[in-house]
Amino acid sequence: MTDKKPLILVTNDDGITAPGIRHLVKLMKEIGEVVIVAPDSPQSGMGHAITTENPLYVDPIELPKNVTHKAYSCSGTPVDCVKIACQSILSRWPDICVSGINHGSNSAINVIYSGTMSAAVEAGTNGIPAVGFSLLDHSMEADFEPSSKFVKRIVRNILEEGLPKGVVLNVNIPKLKENEIKGIKVCRQSKARWEETFIKRQSPRGRDYFWPTGRFINEENGEASDTDEWALENGFISVVPVQHDLTAHSYLEELKTWKIND
Amino acid sequence: MTDKKPLILVTNDDGITAPGIRHLVKLMKEIGEVVIVAPDSPQSGMGHAITTENPLYVDPIELPKNVTHKAYSCSGTPVDCVKIACQSILSRWPDICVSGINHGSNSAINVIYSGTMSAAVEAGTNGIPAVGFSLLDHSMEADFEPSSKFVKRIVRNILEEGLPKGVVLNVNIPKLKENEIKGIKVCRQSKARWEETFIKRQSPRGRDYFWPTGRFINEENGEASDTDEWALENGFISVVPVQHDLTAHSYLEELKTWKIND
Repeated sequence: MTDKKPLILVTNDDGITAPGIRHLVKLMKEIGEVVIVAPDSPQSGMGHAITTENPLYVDPIELPKNVTHKAYSCSGTPVDCVKIACQSILSRWPDICVSGINHGSNSAINVIYSGTMSAAVEAGTNGIPAVGFSLLDHSMEADFEPSSKFVKRIVRNILEEGLPKGVVLNVNIPKLKENEIKGIKVCRQSKARWEETFIKRQSPRGRDYFWPTGRFINEENGEASDTDEWALENGFISVVPVQHDLTAHSYLEELKTWKIND
Repeated sequence: MTDKKPLILVTNDDGITAPGIRHLVKLMKEIGEVVIVAPDSPQSGMGHAITTENPLYVDPIELPKNVTHKAYSCSGTPVDCVKIACQSILSRWPDICVSGINHGSNSAINVIYSGTMSAAVEAGTNGIPAVGFSLLDHSMEADFEPSSKFVKRIVRNILEEGLPKGVVLNVNIPKLKENEIKGIKVCRQSKARWEETFIKRQSPRGRDYFWPTGRFINEENGEASDTDEWALENGFISVVPVQHDLTAHSYLEELKTWKIND
C-alpha cells in the first residue's frame, strides 16, 4: 500500500438503498475513497447471474455537495455491478471490493445462492481482493453497529496482507452485542443444504402456482468446530476463504479410473 | 441399480423448447424413464439464482398420447426447476439429473455463470448424481448428433459408478464430427476469466445504457494438458468433477496466521 487512500468498490445484493450497505459505506469511508455501484432493486438469491440479453442502465445518484463518496445504481445483478464498475465507472482498478453488509446469513451452502458473495467472487476472478459481509438478521431494522470494529479490522487486514488471486473472504456475523462476540474464526464451509417445501395455490384464473419455502439443514456433526456454522452458533464471526475453482480435486483421481472411454 | 428403469430428471437453461434439450431427451429415453422440468424461457447466464419473492408457475406440457415421457415448464430459474421437480413434481427422488445439452461452452470459469451447470450442482447438494452437458456451438442449428454416444456412455457410467454426495460432472463437447472426437478426458477447471467491454449508448429519452460484451481469457499456459480448455482445443470431450464446497482449502492454514483478532 502507498500513502494514497485505497479505492474501495462497495456493492451488495439487497439493493443500493438497504441499511446494510449504508452502514458499510460509513465504515469504509474511514479507510479509503469509496465508490458504490449497487443494484437499483433487491437481487437477493441471484447467485452468479449475469445480464446478457438486455442492456444495463447505470444512473449516478445525486448526493449532497459535502458528501465525499460517489454512488451509482445499476439495473443489473450484483455480478453485473462489479463488471461494469471495474470496466466503465471507476477511474482505476479498485484496491478492494467490499460487498454487503447482507441482511441475513451467507454461511454454509448459502454462499452459492448469494448475490452478495457472487459479487465478491466476481471481483476475485479479476484478481481484485474482495470480501462479502453478512449479518445473521434479515430485518430492515437490523443493528449493524456491533459488527463495525470487526468489519473494519478485516478490511484493513486484507489491504495489508493481500489475498491470492481468485480467493475472497466470506464473513458472517452473529446477531449479538459487540461485547458478546467472542472474536473472528477462520473456518471451512459447513456441509449443509436447503430442504424445500412448495406451497401450492391456484390463481384467480385457475393456474397452479407454487410458493417456495425452505428449511436449512446443517449436515455436519454438531461438534465440527472447524465449520462456519459452528463458529456462528458459538458466538464467533466466521471467515471462510472462498474460491471460484469448482473442481472437486479430491475426486479427480478416482474419476480417472472410470472405464469411460471403453 | 435394480432392474427398474432409472428415473431421469432432465433440465437445462436454454429453455424447454431448445434443440439441445430435445436431443438430450431423445437419448435419455434409451436409458430410462424421463421427466423434463425446464424453464419456460431462456435462462442462460442465470448461475445459481433462485426465486424467493415470487411464486413459481409450473405447467404440464400436453404431449401426443404415444409419447412416453412427461414434461413441465417452469417460470423459474434452472435451480428452481430442480428444487420443484424433486419436491413437488416427481413421484420419487430421481436416480440422476441430466442438464443440457447447453448451446455453448460451460468450460473453465463459465461453470459459475451457467444455469445449466447450477441445475446439476443443485441436484448434487441433495445427493442426486448429476451431470451437465454443453456443446461448443451457440447456434440453434447446432448438430448434437456427434455427441450422442458419448452422452449416453457418461450417463450410464454415472448410473453404474455413482458419484460422491455433492460432486457432479461438467461435460463439454467440442464442435467436431463423431470420428474427429478423440475421446473423453477427465480434467480440472482451467484458470480463466472474462474481460468485459461495455458499449455505451443513449436511449431516445436520454438515459445512458450499456451493452455488455466479453472476451474469454484462458490464463493457463497452453501446455497445461490437465485442464478442460486444453482437452477441448485438442479434440477431447472434457469431464470436470465439480463441487459446491467453495472453501479455498489450500489457503485455510495461511489465513489462520493473520493477526485478525489483535
